[in-house]
Amino acid sequence: MSNPVLVEVLRGGLVESRHAGAVAVVDADGGRVLALGDVERPVFPRSAIKALQALPLVETGAADRYGFGPEELALACASHSGEPGHVATATRMLMLAGLDETALKCGAHWPIHQPSAQALAREGGTAGPLHNNCSGKHAGFLCVACAIAADRAHYVEPANPVQRLVKSTIEDLTGVTLSQDVCATDGCSVPTWAMPLANLARGFARLGTGTGLAPDRARAAVRLRAACAAHPWHVAGTGRFCTAIMTRFGARAFVKTGAEGVYCAALPEQGLGIAVKCDDGAGRAAEVAMAALLSRFLPLESDRAALEPFVRPVLRNWNGIAVGGMRPTPALTA
Amino acid sequence: MSNPVLVEVLRGGLVESRHAGAVAVVDADGGRVLALGDVERPVFPRSAIKALQALPLVETGAADRYGFGPEELALACASHSGEPGHVATATRMLMLAGLDETALKCGAHWPIHQPSAQALAREGGTAGPLHNNCSGKHAGFLCVACAIAADRAHYVEPANPVQRLVKSTIEDLTGVTLSQDVCATDGCSVPTWAMPLANLARGFARLGTGTGLAPDRARAAVRLRAACAAHPWHVAGTGRFCTAIMTRFGARAFVKTGAEGVYCAALPEQGLGIAVKCDDGAGRAAEVAMAALLSRFLPLESDRAALEPFVRPVLRNWNGIAVGGMRPTPALTA
Repeated sequence: MSNPVLVEVLRGGLVESRHAGAVAVVDADGGRVLALGDVERPVFPRSAIKALQALPLVETGAADRYGFGPEELALACASHSGEPGHVATATRMLMLAGLDETALKCGAHWPIHQPSAQALAREGGTAGPLHNNCSGKHAGFLCVACAIAADRAHYVEPANPVQRLVKSTIEDLTGVTLSQDVCATDGCSVPTWAMPLANLARGFARLGTGTGLAPDRARAAVRLRAACAAHPWHVAGTGRFCTAIMTRFGARAFVKTGAEGVYCAALPEQGLGIAVKCDDGAGRAAEVAMAALLSRFLPLESDRAALEPFVRPVLRNWNGIAVGGMRPTPALTA
Repeated sequence: MSNPVLVEVLRGGLVESRHAGAVAVVDADGGRVLALGDVERPVFPRSAIKALQALPLVETGAADRYGFGPEELALACASHSGEPGHVATATRMLMLAGLDETALKCGAHWPIHQPSAQALAREGGTAGPLHNNCSGKHAGFLCVACAIAADRAHYVEPANPVQRLVKSTIEDLTGVTLSQDVCATDGCSVPTWAMPLANLARGFARLGTGTGLAPDRARAAVRLRAACAAHPWHVAGTGRFCTAIMTRFGARAFVKTGAEGVYCAALPEQGLGIAVKCDDGAGRAAEVAMAALLSRFLPLESDRAALEPFVRPVLRNWNGIAVGGMRPTPALTA
């Protein structure tokens, strides 16, 4: 049984490409508000789950111990673009814990933000681990390792106390028991645990509402969401969808992208969690799908107007000529 | 009726993403050797069709008039990576026709080849039209415009004699009448004409065999294929699939990528043309599908061994750790 087409890509008057996928929108008890496609198939959340991975940073007291403010907390939840401000915040997080970039095990890549990558090259620089979009998350993991006296040389390994704490936190929010056979290695070398899309959505409903969470955990969730709402540029960067959405909607919509076509959201006022997985791993389609879902589940007419450029983006070629666009299918908008 | 899954992306022990699509393998009379999915649905060939678009460059005598050798002809068929050697050849093509880069209407982008882009930034340079992956094709169009005394300020427009010549050439090889309602604008601003995948494959079977073509056109096809076989680096670039395949197989396999998940091939010895379209536009899946099809239709055991790294590529993360891979489904390999 194949998943429905969620997003179409147009060129001229014809559909050029099609993205199928699954969508789960649930409440904090896991009650299904919308299920499109197979929402029981295991999905690796990848970076979409970073806010859940960051809960131990607050809960263990590490964030307070090292004096982290909201920018540092937002960066711990981020897939950032490697712009100078992101690199500066990651550097500060490590410094506050008495560390530097040599402690990071995320690997190096050039900044996602192309003008920053070009500027780095112009200055004679090269890609380092601080530019890695996950450097804030890794800095957070290192701080947890320091705070709980775990072996920080091996903080990325599944058996390390840091990752075990992360795993049990994810299990608590999503309601899934994560066994070794659904564990794989993420792009930044930490474990990623596959789970049904419906459970991933439940995790975000709980992140947004605190329903069913221990008081300390619920408070940590509030604090991380507030940090991201206050500093959305730190969660992604210039021109990025997560940043644009949280800049517009503030605490009303927490959204987070993950590799391979995953997008998650928490809508605290509606009590909903949303999880999208494009079958083919396409980020462009996951963004359109998420924009369409926000437009469907946020209540105001003005919200829908603000979302329209993301729901039906125009595609332009190298000369800036409008050559086509993307649009959600009726499966998403109905 | 949805198209079959052609390629799976694995992470750890699980399938993380899936790419559906269609495949047509036909002989020069359009006889179907293999059809997977909907091969009648109109598909924009995009850059996959550059070799057909380059036929008028040879047929009009423009290539000889300006003294083009095989490197220039290969670049006219290329989606090149913007490496210094590609830029030099494009510059030479324009110079031989008495032109320079200001005549190009393809738009500017940074080199696809990341080390070349970084080197360009380090030198204080910026993206120009010569770096555009289509600059060789556009230089070819400009030479045709000069040779047939067409208005070269508007060589990208559908009504210009250059594009009308290109269109009638494509119609001849593919056997499709291309009407205005299947015309859209490509990334480099020239027209792209949608056609059934089976006809696109037929065009490549004829490019590879000359069957049914006028003698001058058949000779032009031989000359372009020989140029690409002799200079496969000029057709794509360092580390690229087209280059790797033609370096290994020479004149036995002409392959060409196009945007949005299109891949085409001509296997002259087998008399076959191949066209692949991934529904979602994913180039990574189109490459795996093409590798699997080459492995299926090229006759030798040693061919299959050489193709294996492309049929089942390993995916590595930022630390070089093998985290998964890609593989064709039985629909492709059966």
